[in-house]
Amino acid sequence: MAPLTTRFPVPSDIECAHSVTPVNIGTIAKGLGLDEEEFDCYGKCKAKVKLSAYQNRSGDASGTGKYVVVTGITPTPLGEGKSTTTVGLAQALGAHFPELENKVVACVRQPSQGPTFGIKGGAAGGGYSQVIPMEEFNLHMTGDIHAITAANNLLAAAIDTRIFHESTQKDEALFNRLVPLKKGERVLSRTMRLRLEKLGLGDKPIEEFTQADMARAARLNIDKATVTWRRVLDTNDRFLRALTVGQGPAEKGYNRETGFDITVASEIMAVLALTTSLGDMRERLGRMVVASDLDGNAVTAEDLNVAGALTVLMKDAIEPTLMQTLEATPVLVHAGPFANIAHGNSSIVADQIALSLVGEGGYVITEAGFGADIGFEKFCNIKCRYSEYKPDCAVIVATVRALKMHGGGPEVVAGRPLADEYLSENVELVRRGCSNLVRHIENIKKFGIPVVVALNAFASDTQAEQDAIKAASLEAGAFEVQVSSHHAHGGKGALDLAEAVRRACSGASSFDFLYPLDLPIKDKIWAIAKEIYRASDIKYSEEAEKKIELYTKQGFDKLPMCMAKTQYSFSDDPKLKGAPTDFVISVDDIRASVGAGFLFPILGKMPTIPGLPTRPCFFDIDIDEDGNIIGLM
Amino acid sequence: MAPLTTRFPVPSDIECAHSVTPVNIGTIAKGLGLDEEEFDCYGKCKAKVKLSAYQNRSGDASGTGKYVVVTGITPTPLGEGKSTTTVGLAQALGAHFPELENKVVACVRQPSQGPTFGIKGGAAGGGYSQVIPMEEFNLHMTGDIHAITAANNLLAAAIDTRIFHESTQKDEALFNRLVPLKKGERVLSRTMRLRLEKLGLGDKPIEEFTQADMARAARLNIDKATVTWRRVLDTNDRFLRALTVGQGPAEKGYNRETGFDITVASEIMAVLALTTSLGDMRERLGRMVVASDLDGNAVTAEDLNVAGALTVLMKDAIEPTLMQTLEATPVLVHAGPFANIAHGNSSIVADQIALSLVGEGGYVITEAGFGADIGFEKFCNIKCRYSEYKPDCAVIVATVRALKMHGGGPEVVAGRPLADEYLSENVELVRRGCSNLVRHIENIKKFGIPVVVALNAFASDTQAEQDAIKAASLEAGAFEVQVSSHHAHGGKGALDLAEAVRRACSGASSFDFLYPLDLPIKDKIWAIAKEIYRASDIKYSEEAEKKIELYTKQGFDKLPMCMAKTQYSFSDDPKLKGAPTDFVISVDDIRASVGAGFLFPILGKMPTIPGLPTRPCFFDIDIDEDGNIIGLM
Repeated sequence: MAPLTTRFPVPSDIECAHSVTPVNIGTIAKGLGLDEEEFDCYGKCKAKVKLSAYQNRSGDASGTGKYVVVTGITPTPLGEGKSTTTVGLAQALGAHFPELENKVVACVRQPSQGPTFGIKGGAAGGGYSQVIPMEEFNLHMTGDIHAITAANNLLAAAIDTRIFHESTQKDEALFNRLVPLKKGERVLSRTMRLRLEKLGLGDKPIEEFTQADMARAARLNIDKATVTWRRVLDTNDRFLRALTVGQGPAEKGYNRETGFDITVASEIMAVLALTTSLGDMRERLGRMVVASDLDGNAVTAEDLNVAGALTVLMKDAIEPTLMQTLEATPVLVHAGPFANIAHGNSSIVADQIALSLVGEGGYVITEAGFGADIGFEKFCNIKCRYSEYKPDCAVIVATVRALKMHGGGPEVVAGRPLADEYLSENVELVRRGCSNLVRHIENIKKFGIPVVVALNAFASDTQAEQDAIKAASLEAGAFEVQVSSHHAHGGKGALDLAEAVRRACSGASSFDFLYPLDLPIKDKIWAIAKEIYRASDIKYSEEAEKKIELYTKQGFDKLPMCMAKTQYSFSDDPKLKGAPTDFVISVDDIRASVGAGFLFPILGKMPTIPGLPTRPCFFDIDIDEDGNIIGLM
Repeated sequence: MAPLTTRFPVPSDIECAHSVTPVNIGTIAKGLGLDEEEFDCYGKCKAKVKLSAYQNRSGDASGTGKYVVVTGITPTPLGEGKSTTTVGLAQALGAHFPELENKVVACVRQPSQGPTFGIKGGAAGGGYSQVIPMEEFNLHMTGDIHAITAANNLLAAAIDTRIFHESTQKDEALFNRLVPLKKGERVLSRTMRLRLEKLGLGDKPIEEFTQADMARAARLNIDKATVTWRRVLDTNDRFLRALTVGQGPAEKGYNRETGFDITVASEIMAVLALTTSLGDMRERLGRMVVASDLDGNAVTAEDLNVAGALTVLMKDAIEPTLMQTLEATPVLVHAGPFANIAHGNSSIVADQIALSLVGEGGYVITEAGFGADIGFEKFCNIKCRYSEYKPDCAVIVATVRALKMHGGGPEVVAGRPLADEYLSENVELVRRGCSNLVRHIENIKKFGIPVVVALNAFASDTQAEQDAIKAASLEAGAFEVQVSSHHAHGGKGALDLAEAVRRACSGASSFDFLYPLDLPIKDKIWAIAKEIYRASDIKYSEEAEKKIELYTKQGFDKLPMCMAKTQYSFSDDPKLKGAPTDFVISVDDIRASVGAGFLFPILGKMPTIPGLPTRPCFFDIDIDEDGNIIGLM
């Protein structure tokens, strides 16, 4: 691989992406030690990696490679370059240290297609630190998100269908349809057998079933008002947020108010990100709670007899997709759950495979969504809890721009020009804004691991501004601070950062969770609010109190907490920048993703499907005369 | 390749499918003469074939291989085995005649995932005549249907978004958003340039635009009541048939009654099936009409500035997927448009590639949906009109079972046991039912090509019943009649049929369309109704009359007609079996698929999204302990 040739000023993302011819993905796979049976090519530049890649390598990846998590300070709406830093760091480690060749893997999330055509554009990194081909990364990829759409909506159709058919059929007729008699034998699907076992009817011969047994087996008695499962699409379509389904004449008056979320907000996406094997995914999908019955019991996908079919729809999606950086180092792309109503991290399965492939002395760089108060906290308390992996070090990405905002700079709005404060030196604003970075550093250290600050360099940064950040970080206990110019220079620009990460990983760490699972729900929420957000108190709505009671009764109180909070402040008020104190957070509601394995307390309004602006990104996206894609950002 | 080992009685479809280890798809591709740059593997058993495969081979496939279309008699709800015959015939020709090795390609449609989990199950053929792996064929395949879902729904979101934003913004502000000024330059996307050209403003400098010019350029003035574009999902979800969108508070009272269709009913699916190149697809997607404006002019996807983005979403989907039969002969799977509101045939692109690959003396077997009164008529008058290919022969599939039904046998209902008439000999019913087959034979001959009858054998058929069909067919002018047992025996069971097809193709044919495009709309409909259905008259509803006037005014009257009619009768009454005469058909409405390139008169109610039964197929679909898929039919 020839070294990357960079231009100045840095051209558009798509031009940078096209400045290099991708290596055949089979070559990348073989470089990692994968054999032909362990991966499937999807075209020349993508490959699905089979779970056997992990299972064949001892089935235990812990204690092999070094595990590095990349997080960020509280961001501006423009983002501070977490994905770009993740990719740039992987390029630096993987392409500039001969001893690490084929021993460094970046694990990143698959982006939603909605924003690609909406406001935000793609998410493959930026400048000379990108996953390529960026078109394939941003569009369809290997179809995982489409599989989630299909599975999510099959479950939704199953729910309404079941309520509808239960309302029009007598117990025995319903039972005989669900457990049909064919050639003198009862056809009992595996999922129906699981239901009978759950009801204590597993050992009773069906011919001895009483009318009551049949009714119990056949009727889920879903309370229509309690259905929480929504439909999804991977499109920014705000008009689907709230709608009434079932208005056709054939539905005989059966209708219901519901809505669509964007696909990445589906619990199935969170399941994909947290599962550890196909069998585990089958169980998690079955455990997903979609409603309560008329007695207040949880109704699951297993009860609806659809969990096996959902698993079949997700069978390929569980395999991470191997792609490459601009410097031909391997990247595993997998899952992309929401970072508020879900945990916002790439998948456990990808990290498993990556750790087992890089082996002793190698590095896996994985990314956590939003700021460290959200994505990193959930990385530790949710993802690492299920994966049993312990990170060796954290990298926190900071920018002069965001710290100026935290220091009192004017509002930063996507699409509008930046104010002067952000374009010329203002050390005082930076110094004041460091309060935000400092608190994140302190928080990360509470988990027992070293934290390296990656100062993502911009052309407008000055030495004095960067020095102020360095001083504040070291004083707060950062392991090291390094300025990184990977956006402009690729891996070469992140060499200092890479060296710092290697040093940080060589020491001992003593990773631990922030709270044990057996605490009551409110105590777990308080642990996060107090230690991470630094709130002075929590207010619970009546709805939240009711849910705490319900989930405790249903036995879901032993799950970790996945806080759904704004990413723009430590508090639940996006306007409170820097490091606010003396604030109270409000838990408006609590919901459950039992299959994924967490409860999510909701602090404020969380939009779950975006809209399109007046002039969406799709205006510029087209093909040229040679059939090449143009206009993708 | 070892010969197929068959068992008796024929095991389940999935067992037959698993009785053979698939050949690596790269080997199949290379056997066809494709070079590495002309295809992309998607796993070990599927490959996308690039359009360059056709373009590199002279770019003109007509006059090379023989082109055989498989159609059927008016079916029972159980289906008479058209797909199975298509695959079985390809196995016979491709695996049992050494001189035809690598010179026979079957072109079939991709099935919708909805019915796979609903009532019908999969659609890979059956018994020992199947496309394998049937799991990959039936689930996701290479993501083409998912791409259509994404494109269809992006357009839907663009429509509501545009109406919403036009309603809240002044002309100049709206124009300045759509054609923004950036660093002193107007950003004019290609699609916006096309719009200005359409309005005659293409040459006028934007700085000279008057308020009126800006208003014309920026405002589509869509009449909300005329929006015909619906959203789609590839799920059997009847509750989405009719709904009201926009009920969220952020949508400020903007709501609209609309609904979802199943994805294969999207016009984009019909475009995919009828397009001939990427550039042609870009134009067709742009021409799709989604509504009228307040002055009654057609509003297109191009007007909404989204046609380029739709093309980008469909860029991979335009490439057919190469798979294989149980006897390792090549199959191109591509597109699967509805056979009523669309034309129900696999893609032109796949046939192009197949014809150019099989070359002189080779065979391409392509399938037309529903009975010959629908799928074959549309194959000739719509598909061949756009492709400019002429079929060399037609194969019509008949069964004793269906002919007994046409002769007056009891109703056949899916899921219920067959009546005795269908299980024991009844030559009289067969003889009477042959009226249906005879009329189809006469109809096919009107297009100037020879027709071979494939009598799809069942274990319950008797010699006398088969003899009755042979006699009637030959008397009606069939080229030959052959009994075919490909379901039980694979290609070996279809050898006689294969020989007959070779003989039929060796003669001259004089293919022609049934009507010229420049006839008025009603005359084209009458040509089909009189010559194919044998109706005595047509009744037009007021709505249909209005549409004829509108489409004639809008200039869409030169398109071919795509009749949306029941498949269960020559008439529009599914109960009229056999060969009915003296009936009147009713055109209730006429709609336009301008991008795909046809108008579709609607005869009766056409459901465009199915529902799920009480016990859907998904009950049995699961993974076993080794992670293998079970329960797919």
